[in-house]
Amino acid sequence: MKCGTLILLSFWLAVAYAEGAQDMRIEYAIALHGGAGGDWLELDAEGQAATKASLRAALTTGNKILATGGSSLDAVEQVIRHFEDDPLFNAGKGAVFNSVGGHELDASIMDGSDRACGAVAGVTTIKNPISLARLVMTKTRHVLLSGAGAERFGKAMKVDRVDQKYFWTQRRYDAWQRVKNKEQAKHKGTVGCVALDKHGNLAAGTSTGGLTNKLFGRIGDSPIIGAGTYADNATCAVSCTGVGEHYIRNAIAYDVSARMAYKGQAVDAAVEHILTKVLKPGQGGIIAVTHDGTITMQFNTTAMARAAADSTGRFEIAIGK
Amino acid sequence: MKCGTLILLSFWLAVAYAEGAQDMRIEYAIALHGGAGGDWLELDAEGQAATKASLRAALTTGNKILATGGSSLDAVEQVIRHFEDDPLFNAGKGAVFNSVGGHELDASIMDGSDRACGAVAGVTTIKNPISLARLVMTKTRHVLLSGAGAERFGKAMKVDRVDQKYFWTQRRYDAWQRVKNKEQAKHKGTVGCVALDKHGNLAAGTSTGGLTNKLFGRIGDSPIIGAGTYADNATCAVSCTGVGEHYIRNAIAYDVSARMAYKGQAVDAAVEHILTKVLKPGQGGIIAVTHDGTITMQFNTTAMARAAADSTGRFEIAIGK
Repeated sequence: MKCGTLILLSFWLAVAYAEGAQDMRIEYAIALHGGAGGDWLELDAEGQAATKASLRAALTTGNKILATGGSSLDAVEQVIRHFEDDPLFNAGKGAVFNSVGGHELDASIMDGSDRACGAVAGVTTIKNPISLARLVMTKTRHVLLSGAGAERFGKAMKVDRVDQKYFWTQRRYDAWQRVKNKEQAKHKGTVGCVALDKHGNLAAGTSTGGLTNKLFGRIGDSPIIGAGTYADNATCAVSCTGVGEHYIRNAIAYDVSARMAYKGQAVDAAVEHILTKVLKPGQGGIIAVTHDGTITMQFNTTAMARAAADSTGRFEIAIGK
Repeated sequence: MKCGTLILLSFWLAVAYAEGAQDMRIEYAIALHGGAGGDWLELDAEGQAATKASLRAALTTGNKILATGGSSLDAVEQVIRHFEDDPLFNAGKGAVFNSVGGHELDASIMDGSDRACGAVAGVTTIKNPISLARLVMTKTRHVLLSGAGAERFGKAMKVDRVDQKYFWTQRRYDAWQRVKNKEQAKHKGTVGCVALDKHGNLAAGTSTGGLTNKLFGRIGDSPIIGAGTYADNATCAVSCTGVGEHYIRNAIAYDVSARMAYKGQAVDAAVEHILTKVLKPGQGGIIAVTHDGTITMQFNTTAMARAAADSTGRFEIAIGK
């Protein structure tokens, strides 16, 4: 073979390789969860189908926003609004009952591009806590507003408000009665979403009604940046679901990011370590997406309602293992 | 020299070295802060003397508990109760005014031996929020209680309760008027304490009245485990003071621990990195003590009221650089 031929061949191989690499690059990615817990498996076929249909609708909403160049923050907010409006999930409309028979909702959202974040805790009249959390991020100098102060802010921002009756659902009422009768609460309900957009920005959000029969005033990990939610373009976006107290005391969401940044762990290894070595079986689940579009969705319960999609055509929905 | 003499000499040197090493070992250590911010330097000589006297009294209290074999949790709680009862500090009695002229207090405490933790946010009638935080840790399955739910828990626990008038002080009222008139709030007030006891257990606690003129319902970093407070026997105990929002979005207290655990950084290097590279000048300070008794107290403001002591006789109090 002549030298010229060799050079041409090398050139062609290099171009093909570069094009291949480009094809493989994930332009956008999204993962979401509707809570970890064994009770998903107790639903009858109809209940499971309804849950999967809702996960599919949420995923379609988020995927479309990202595919058309929308921001990861918009995708996260809209996916979580979907869950908050669906009584199947423990967030917004479907929020569980607390120990005094009321509903107190928590949510947080974080922008990985500048680590701006916002959260609300213990709100009782806000239809979509995730949107109020985003307004705390963009319209105040604060990160976390709680209780009556958060309600007042919601009123000033003119977000949709509802009365407590809006949150009454038979399923959650029955669950509360069972827990009051000393049955173990099975539902570790929380909803969350993490996304990478075409602009390379990560975002994460989480929303919940908390634990069934929780003490009035209890705040879990969902509105706590670093515990239930974290996002940093340098590493990953994370949303957690489970018994919030364990997520707070181990700073779980931030820990996924720290393990990547300081130990060089891959995101799936970091999440696996946390779920098997830091947390105990049955305590919950974690979803994360990295700056290069790698998605991980893991849990140490028997099930987690979840879904994921990305620019390569991945589009999947699951509940059990 | 005969061989026997050489052996005896080696033996003697080894014993002396081991004894020296034992003497150098720090059996217990404590550090505390009364908040970072330039306004400490604006106090007249009398004000500075009063501040130092109060720091000395707090340090003496904590040091005595540790020297007599008491727990780091007891030392942390009692030191912070001292600050909460002294109107010089922005915690308890001396809490600043919020945007509606009220007082909302936050506190958290953490046990490094098992990472148990407790916190209260937005309480308005609790004389010593740090003690209520400790009761959340030991008497509930939750980590963080807020607002009216936390008050109700305080009532059930029979802790000392006061009305809002108790928190009215001329100095904080004047500061609120100045801030309402668009002056920059200078005070980054918060109090905190970290300790290592003779049993090798670390503990950390933080308590605050928050930011002057903060939005009603705003929660800062002080009651957020991982942001304002963290303790883990494997690494260190940390308490932060400053503009809480930056401490939340960077999970500062947990980050000190993560940098030690995952990067092998020394505690002073970890804190220095955070104060110079992660946070911006003027945003606050951090105190920490490690499992081997190393203390660090750093700040990127012009001053931080602080003090430290340990079993080797160290006993120091400072305000400026």
